[in-house]
Amino acid sequence: MLSKNDIKIIKSLQNKKYRKTYGLFTVEGEKNVVELIQAKWPIQRLIISERFADKYRSLLTSIKQPVDIVSDSQLGELSHLESNHSALAVAPLVDRSKEQPDTSKSMLVLCNVQDPGNLGTIIRTADWFGIEQIVCSPVTVEWFNPKVIQATMGAFIRVKVFYQELEPFLKTIQQPIIAADLQGSNIYDHQFSDPSVILMGSESHGIPEDLSSYITDRLTIPSFGETESLNVAIATGIFCFALRR
Amino acid sequence: MLSKNDIKIIKSLQNKKYRKTYGLFTVEGEKNVVELIQAKWPIQRLIISERFADKYRSLLTSIKQPVDIVSDSQLGELSHLESNHSALAVAPLVDRSKEQPDTSKSMLVLCNVQDPGNLGTIIRTADWFGIEQIVCSPVTVEWFNPKVIQATMGAFIRVKVFYQELEPFLKTIQQPIIAADLQGSNIYDHQFSDPSVILMGSESHGIPEDLSSYITDRLTIPSFGETESLNVAIATGIFCFALRR
Repeated sequence: MLSKNDIKIIKSLQNKKYRKTYGLFTVEGEKNVVELIQAKWPIQRLIISERFADKYRSLLTSIKQPVDIVSDSQLGELSHLESNHSALAVAPLVDRSKEQPDTSKSMLVLCNVQDPGNLGTIIRTADWFGIEQIVCSPVTVEWFNPKVIQATMGAFIRVKVFYQELEPFLKTIQQPIIAADLQGSNIYDHQFSDPSVILMGSESHGIPEDLSSYITDRLTIPSFGETESLNVAIATGIFCFALRR
Repeated sequence: MLSKNDIKIIKSLQNKKYRKTYGLFTVEGEKNVVELIQAKWPIQRLIISERFADKYRSLLTSIKQPVDIVSDSQLGELSHLESNHSALAVAPLVDRSKEQPDTSKSMLVLCNVQDPGNLGTIIRTADWFGIEQIVCSPVTVEWFNPKVIQATMGAFIRVKVFYQELEPFLKTIQQPIIAADLQGSNIYDHQFSDPSVILMGSESHGIPEDLSSYITDRLTIPSFGETESLNVAIATGIFCFALRR
């Protein structure tokens, strides 16, 4: 059973500071939690509705950790989602600080993406296009953020997200480094090679100056209207699509 | 000066019911409000911070409607945004019920997109690719929703969004009707013609059965991973990119 203290801790995990304090994060919603269980991802505890318990009875037999079946209102109280009538898992934070991306494979490199929905959507999109690694600048929003997790729709299980200083990392890269740039050449005319690194700047500040010298190609998605820029997740999706052509 | 009643009304406009009652909606954030003024869009009143007033002094001389300069905390109180330190405009709702889309031009048709961030991003993306019309099923989220407006980054000024029953509308269309469909043929192999209608289903329910017979081409964005679907705004962005190739 969930104690008052458990509830307090779980609710606090919406906050980066407490995720660090407790070394835990939450995964919410039916699809995310089902994928988590199927992937045998480490779970500390699972809190589910009766409906979820009924629907996934056989899947749940594989769980050795504590499972609490709670009312919809209790689940709602724990959740950061507007409505969560299915499940919430508590899982240990993943430490990738000693791991390095595989530089023989294509990857995305993100500078300072701040919006959690955008990062989550980028992770989901990378998964669709079979890109299994994303390297983020240290100030990019955390992938443990519940809004990121929600937007990934389970893709965080398959796509590894790393955080590190980009300048020393890009220095080690042998593959082409393709940057999205409003002053670049036309992406429709570019022949992508695989592997490639796709480098996306932030919508407000673009690509930091110190990374410039590592870029091999600057490409633009031509505009046919008056809007000043594309959303960073949309631009990333189009670059991934062009890479896989 | 803003009366208590003005504040109450403006705050209520976050809610669809009160937008209808008062016939008004709000436009927030620096970029959206600046574009609104530059486009001479009808404004009922404007509430801005001192900083915004200083930065856009000459632009503001074109405004004939009441302009209130308020403190950041007052602006924050009125706003649905997490932080709005710039501006909020109140504008009359736009009635397009007697207007028809121009069927000689390319357009997007959306079935039941529920997430306001997704609709806003789709409007912004359409603008980038010079697609000036979006026809939505009646249950698609309202474009007057403040979260939609925010995500458009001003593109709602240039892209007309219509709401109508899709079946009778598609019946009138002579152009190719291209649907995004997980069981379609490969989008990389398709030669798009302009004008075309791009038809996007909802992420959870796809395209309603009653629209099937109007579809001329069903196309898939091939998957290279295990994720089940793309976010609807990402898929729309890729279809627009493919259309403009």
